[in-house]
Amino acid sequence: MANLQTLATLVGGELQGDPDVNIHQVAPIDQAQQGDITFVANPKYLAQLDKCHASAVLLAPGVAPPEGVNLIICANPYLAFAKILTLLQVPEPPSRGIMTGAVIADSADLAESVTVHPGCVVGERVKIGTGTILYPGVVLYDDVTIGANCLIHANAVVREGCRLHDRVILQPAAIIGSDGFGFAPDGNSYYKIPQVGIVVLEDDVEIGSGSCVDRAALGETRIGRGTKLDNLVQIGHNVKVGEDCILVAQIGVAGSSTIGRHCTFGGQSAVAGHLEIGDNVMIGARGGAANNVASNQVLSGAPLMPHKEWLRSTMVFPKLPEMRKDLKQMKKRLEEIESLLKES
Amino acid sequence: MANLQTLATLVGGELQGDPDVNIHQVAPIDQAQQGDITFVANPKYLAQLDKCHASAVLLAPGVAPPEGVNLIICANPYLAFAKILTLLQVPEPPSRGIMTGAVIADSADLAESVTVHPGCVVGERVKIGTGTILYPGVVLYDDVTIGANCLIHANAVVREGCRLHDRVILQPAAIIGSDGFGFAPDGNSYYKIPQVGIVVLEDDVEIGSGSCVDRAALGETRIGRGTKLDNLVQIGHNVKVGEDCILVAQIGVAGSSTIGRHCTFGGQSAVAGHLEIGDNVMIGARGGAANNVASNQVLSGAPLMPHKEWLRSTMVFPKLPEMRKDLKQMKKRLEEIESLLKES
Amino acid sequence: MANLQTLATLVGGELQGDPDVNIHQVAPIDQAQQGDITFVANPKYLAQLDKCHASAVLLAPGVAPPEGVNLIICANPYLAFAKILTLLQVPEPPSRGIMTGAVIADSADLAESVTVHPGCVVGERVKIGTGTILYPGVVLYDDVTIGANCLIHANAVVREGCRLHDRVILQPAAIIGSDGFGFAPDGNSYYKIPQVGIVVLEDDVEIGSGSCVDRAALGETRIGRGTKLDNLVQIGHNVKVGEDCILVAQIGVAGSSTIGRHCTFGGQSAVAGHLEIGDNVMIGARGGAANNVASNQVLSGAPLMPHKEWLRSTMVFPKLPEMRKDLKQMKKRLEEIESLLKES
Repeated sequence: MANLQTLATLVGGELQGDPDVNIHQVAPIDQAQQGDITFVANPKYLAQLDKCHASAVLLAPGVAPPEGVNLIICANPYLAFAKILTLLQVPEPPSRGIMTGAVIADSADLAESVTVHPGCVVGERVKIGTGTILYPGVVLYDDVTIGANCLIHANAVVREGCRLHDRVILQPAAIIGSDGFGFAPDGNSYYKIPQVGIVVLEDDVEIGSGSCVDRAALGETRIGRGTKLDNLVQIGHNVKVGEDCILVAQIGVAGSSTIGRHCTFGGQSAVAGHLEIGDNVMIGARGGAANNVASNQVLSGAPLMPHKEWLRSTMVFPKLPEMRKDLKQMKKRLEEIESLLKES
Repeated sequence: MANLQTLATLVGGELQGDPDVNIHQVAPIDQAQQGDITFVANPKYLAQLDKCHASAVLLAPGVAPPEGVNLIICANPYLAFAKILTLLQVPEPPSRGIMTGAVIADSADLAESVTVHPGCVVGERVKIGTGTILYPGVVLYDDVTIGANCLIHANAVVREGCRLHDRVILQPAAIIGSDGFGFAPDGNSYYKIPQVGIVVLEDDVEIGSGSCVDRAALGETRIGRGTKLDNLVQIGHNVKVGEDCILVAQIGVAGSSTIGRHCTFGGQSAVAGHLEIGDNVMIGARGGAANNVASNQVLSGAPLMPHKEWLRSTMVFPKLPEMRKDLKQMKKRLEEIESLLKES
Repeated sequence: MANLQTLATLVGGELQGDPDVNIHQVAPIDQAQQGDITFVANPKYLAQLDKCHASAVLLAPGVAPPEGVNLIICANPYLAFAKILTLLQVPEPPSRGIMTGAVIADSADLAESVTVHPGCVVGERVKIGTGTILYPGVVLYDDVTIGANCLIHANAVVREGCRLHDRVILQPAAIIGSDGFGFAPDGNSYYKIPQVGIVVLEDDVEIGSGSCVDRAALGETRIGRGTKLDNLVQIGHNVKVGEDCILVAQIGVAGSSTIGRHCTFGGQSAVAGHLEIGDNVMIGARGGAANNVASNQVLSGAPLMPHKEWLRSTMVFPKLPEMRKDLKQMKKRLEEIESLLKES
């Protein structure tokens, strides 16, 4: 619980109304009750405020405020909603230390406030920074380094030598540092190329459930600061992903490709190996990059094309049988005309 | 082992032949030996019965029965096969209680007949119903509720507050209740929107290996009674899936979409976010729903179209280069005709 | 560290230069320093050797060797690189026995040199061959058999009765033997068909992180000797994959399909159920096999077509709107000509 003044200060907004009203939780506009705060990010939902029982509303500037409603006017109501939700409804998990049933190698170096749940196994020479929490079943191989205030969820695995910086979140069963997929043909069979590199996850990276980031063959696979991976994403060996990227679920990025800053890739999309993708590239769901991509583009399809052109082409696809039929008929009509003209 | 009369009663079928013959196991028609029961669901395999050594056969009514073979005549031989297989070859796992090496919070409330294997970690205030089995390495976060007679396979994870009803099956490493993928842009970076909702899996739901069902941002993600998810399926936050749906492997359903009852989606298909899919919708393998879908349709492709039309369009796709060439040639011929006519 | 003569002997190459020079590690051509060995598999990188500080170079025969460089001339420099990397930089993990915190059933039969890390759970009657290592959190259900010199990485799961032959590698969280996806319709609902078969992984198979190989309904699912699966691959029940295949990340193979020897499937590709794929078949990224495929083909697309034809068709796809417009215009022009000719 917090009063409206506290929340306005938190989000850097302008308070209009009663600063002392107590807010207990955040709720969507169609469910909010007394004691709740809600938000209007899209003006088309403004009309719903008349029937809304929320005690306060987060609103963008320039929107006509309804009368008699407590308001916080702020540039980005959606961001403000997220910050208030964090404050009100996400209790800081208490530091619980090394719990019974965790197995920690003697040579591991854990900051005092680290929490290690039962069922975790922490290898030799592992270092873990202050405030980090390992949920049950987490496995850290030898020589792993984890920064401060990381959340490593249940059954996540970080293999030997990989490094996580600060405030990294691994969702359950995320796998960091498994072997890259490298084999040298030896006749018809394949010889495994040792994968002796590592993975580095920079500050504020989040990796979704079941997602895999493969270790480099030599050198590093690296995910840049602030980049977020959804669930079941595959990142091949020696890939570099820049800062502040969003990779939606079930994406595959093949080995040795480089992705720039602030890119957004839709679900089930893919990047082939050894490519360079620029900054601020958006790739639509299921898009497939088979060649290098310059910065500042919105692309879809496989092969990639400008998103709007792709939309137009997909709209024609269902007409293909009709087009083929038309072509055949026109060919016949052309032949008839030609023979007619030849006769004359 | 059971005699044929017992099996006929189990499947509600009509026995023709020796009620006392003992059946030891179920086998495919081309491998069945004496003591086995086999089934013919497809009449085209009927001829194989002549060479088959099975002691009995499950057969649909109206099919000409071969002579001298013990039969159970039943409406759905495939279903009968499954029920007999369950009886004969799936021993009820004995209740083994809380085994050494499991870690259970003091405040957890487990029914007496629950089995918890070594390596499991059960959080505070967790409730588990009678007959449920947790295989090794399962992690239940605080405040999870699991119903009766559930099978939770090795290394599956259920995060805080999520609820599984009765007879739910989680295959190994299924992840229930990981954070939904929600971020508010804050300049070029992203602020994590807390995911404070839960996941509810209703009665008789099965979730495949490595599949992920994300917790809601606010409220619930819900999978309806009897719905089955194959392996490596991704369900986004706040999704609702109706009852008796079949979602084949590697499907992705993006956040806040609603799927009706009795839908069947093929492998690697996808549903974009914030959509409504009706009841009895079939989507072919790799189909992609980008818009709402009304009930009772069979669709394929991306964008979705009627399955038969999609088949026709895909058959034309390899002809595209030829069609383009034809178009160019026809254009030229048209121009020649036009210039000829202009001259005349 | 090893001297150049040792390395030349290891890879069966011809030494040109100083046999006694000591090599410490393998490095890419653009990063190699004194004490390193590098390789040139592609002649276009040959020019870079002038600026390279490596103490030795692996080179294919017939390539003009630069002067004053220690060389090992060998038929397959990439394979030689892999073998030397293994020798120099992959220390044999020491056998550590059954470590405190591992739970082993009394009836399990483990060879003396087996390593079992903390957090592993090994079921009844499990057999494990000499030199095999189970990393933390591995779960082996009852009656599993694991051969010699296998590496089973953290949190991998092998369910009841499955068999791994020798030198099998499971990356973290690989799931072997989860239930196949089989249900018999019973009205609108589905009855689970028990999956009582097993999985067999032959010698030298590698399974990627989070990949799933489902157990057979009856009989076996089998992955042939030397076949490698990348991460997040799905193999359905009763599938047979031949020897020496390469299956890249996020592939799905549906139930009961058979794949021949020495096939290579690109990322996110798929094979529908109950198909036969021949030997030496290459399927490009995201290709989809909907029908049987004869041996010795390079195919792409869905439906599959020869790779070169697929490339040509995908190049036409962005032209579809223009082609449709052309068709309409030509139709109109045809009509004008026809009416003109009718008049005359």
